[in-house]
Amino acid sequence: MPNIRRFDTKQPDFWSELESLLSWEGVSDDKVNGIVRDILKAVRERGDAALVELTNRLDRMDVKSIRDLEIPRERLEQALAAISTEQRQALELSASRVRLYHEHQKGESWSYTEPDGTLLGQQISPLERAGLYVPGGKAAYPSSVLMNGIPAKVAGVGELIMVVPTPDGEINDLVLAAAAVVGVDRVFALGGAQAIAALAYGTETVPAVDKIVGPGNIFVATAKGMVYGTVGIDMIAGPSEILVICDGETDPDWIAMDLFSQAEHDEDAQSILVCPDGAFLDRVGEAIARLLPTMERAEIIRTSLEARGAFIQVKDMDEAVDVANFIAPEHLELSVADPEAMAPRIRHAGAIFMGRYTAEALGDYCAGPNHVLPTSRTARFSSPLGVYDFQKRSSLLMFSPEGASEMGKIASTFARGEGLTAHARSAEYRIKKH
Amino acid sequence: MPNIRRFDTKQPDFWSELESLLSWEGVSDDKVNGIVRDILKAVRERGDAALVELTNRLDRMDVKSIRDLEIPRERLEQALAAISTEQRQALELSASRVRLYHEHQKGESWSYTEPDGTLLGQQISPLERAGLYVPGGKAAYPSSVLMNGIPAKVAGVGELIMVVPTPDGEINDLVLAAAAVVGVDRVFALGGAQAIAALAYGTETVPAVDKIVGPGNIFVATAKGMVYGTVGIDMIAGPSEILVICDGETDPDWIAMDLFSQAEHDEDAQSILVCPDGAFLDRVGEAIARLLPTMERAEIIRTSLEARGAFIQVKDMDEAVDVANFIAPEHLELSVADPEAMAPRIRHAGAIFMGRYTAEALGDYCAGPNHVLPTSRTARFSSPLGVYDFQKRSSLLMFSPEGASEMGKIASTFARGEGLTAHARSAEYRIKKH
Repeated sequence: MPNIRRFDTKQPDFWSELESLLSWEGVSDDKVNGIVRDILKAVRERGDAALVELTNRLDRMDVKSIRDLEIPRERLEQALAAISTEQRQALELSASRVRLYHEHQKGESWSYTEPDGTLLGQQISPLERAGLYVPGGKAAYPSSVLMNGIPAKVAGVGELIMVVPTPDGEINDLVLAAAAVVGVDRVFALGGAQAIAALAYGTETVPAVDKIVGPGNIFVATAKGMVYGTVGIDMIAGPSEILVICDGETDPDWIAMDLFSQAEHDEDAQSILVCPDGAFLDRVGEAIARLLPTMERAEIIRTSLEARGAFIQVKDMDEAVDVANFIAPEHLELSVADPEAMAPRIRHAGAIFMGRYTAEALGDYCAGPNHVLPTSRTARFSSPLGVYDFQKRSSLLMFSPEGASEMGKIASTFARGEGLTAHARSAEYRIKKH
Repeated sequence: MPNIRRFDTKQPDFWSELESLLSWEGVSDDKVNGIVRDILKAVRERGDAALVELTNRLDRMDVKSIRDLEIPRERLEQALAAISTEQRQALELSASRVRLYHEHQKGESWSYTEPDGTLLGQQISPLERAGLYVPGGKAAYPSSVLMNGIPAKVAGVGELIMVVPTPDGEINDLVLAAAAVVGVDRVFALGGAQAIAALAYGTETVPAVDKIVGPGNIFVATAKGMVYGTVGIDMIAGPSEILVICDGETDPDWIAMDLFSQAEHDEDAQSILVCPDGAFLDRVGEAIARLLPTMERAEIIRTSLEARGAFIQVKDMDEAVDVANFIAPEHLELSVADPEAMAPRIRHAGAIFMGRYTAEALGDYCAGPNHVLPTSRTARFSSPLGVYDFQKRSSLLMFSPEGASEMGKIASTFARGEGLTAHARSAEYRIKKH
């Protein structure tokens, strides 16, 4: 069986060992930075012409004009017609569940009026235009189109622009079909840093957006980091992780497969199992040894489990909760008898999968909640992608003459205390003269 | 009078001229980056000892131990007792108004149960620990302590740690008094990149926080950018800006002073006035010429108005709204007869000050809404600082056996389409066998 590290919270050095196990530093590579900076500059300065050149070179395409890189709406509908009925139904069911769930996240404007007539509140409005990056080639995930696109549409974003590279002209019908189901407004066959540059700065043909979301490789992530400020971006994700807390009563095969489902993403993915029962950990170990050879992606799973996986034996379930709160995992499975009693004690997690039936894989596709979740312990301060990421707020203030007069006195005191006389005098003009 | 640029939307190059006027690139300086990187490394590796060394050197202090850099709770209470009654009342009134307003922003957990018993929702919880940076010396703003600290407290953040440099031992009683009013939990006399490092990584004495908020100089901003990911940060602000839309019926002196109140912040601040009435623009110009010599910070105001200020004459009020939406200003004053008709058409602004009585300065201190607002056109995609910045969400999923069986089939279809067999098999284990 794979050689998975085993910890016991009774070890004196347990918490520092755990911290080392979790530590992850994204690569910051001067060479990548240089390449990306050049690409951003080229697209910013030469627009469409640079996009055509870069796409022909980097994606081994041979197009004459940017017009050849726009994928028309009809092509998306064709793709939706071309996939199997089963696939189409899965896409549509998933989209409707994701839509329903995200409707709950829509923020509404609010205000209140004070006795003197002064109104205070917040006006909530959608972003005008959002960009959705979708990785290309064989790694293209239609579920990613749904999970990133639907919250934008629910928020009421005016125009949703999708970019997806088509290296060697290869295009994934499932991805285009998902774009049709989401109602993406325009799609361009662009990828890499050049696609991010086009969305951030705009070109003659590609409209500039206000925020860019979606996963990508190191060039895409680096480009997103560099254009942040000009546009909004979503979080730059680290490797995917799962933490399974089990009371020792779930079928060990189920737990083993749940750990595999995270590990198969890539070699850096992290699968951790926490349990108070050492004998159960042994049984999961046996299940892993038995099941691993039957897996298509066995080598990726083995590497991931050996490099970053762990079994942690805890004193009791209270300590399991402490471990979860320390890890702040992206995905947390509570494979226990009474998950509803445990969930309110979880302070940090991207998503909490409650009960033995709630496999993490169900959340990846069709449960409804978003699968874009904070990784690398950032669930301590960040949230799943949601409708709130595509809305923003403006404060509203409308003072009545009486309110302005009273508040003007206070503001004047503060402003003079801070040495800002223009602030003070601006407020004082609104004080009533008796 | 200062030489303020004047534009007319009838100019053929108006929109590109406007874009140039707005453009702002934050300085990215290799020397600053190098200094900050060294400071972060020192504090990360040597903790308290590095903090003491750096603070003695950079803030010209002479302390022996980190214990001398903690400002005890009693010192905050002393400061609150030491300031004038008027100042204390201003602080307390402002705090209570800010608290009341921000209570409206508190998010609540929600969930729904499907007919088959499956539960979906989001659990909202406060950050465990937040850090508040407050600039030191004479530029210390007590209002900044209220505006950054109160949303954290309303969110229910467990522990709020404030850092404020005390160069040469100089300390501002108003800032400490504001910290007492907010209920800050611990205060350290630390500043610069070393304070950010302490909050991000923690030391033997300073606890690591989950998010750092608050304004600071270029070293602080650079350090915040570098620790982002390890901890959350608020937006890194550009220069402050105001856009005033006036219908030509407000007292020109009021408008002139409102523009001054922004310009007096610093030379890079931006004050823009938009009006359809050219004669009114002339009258505001005259008011500026007359009032400027009476201002304490006249030189800063003049430089700011000449470098970045503008008068824009528009065709009509509809076009004024278009200009505002293009600029996406931090502060927007609607100094017009019917601001309630105009505000819903504003798509992008940090805060909207409605009506002739609602001077922007009132919002800086005591109106209730936050004065930490998106600058440099980022209101297109970001929001005022709020309670939502100190809360985060965890998705909740609990499948009933029936729900897991049905969803397992869909998930399996997706997962097999994406070539992720462990995902598929994990879902398939939960499908009922008949």
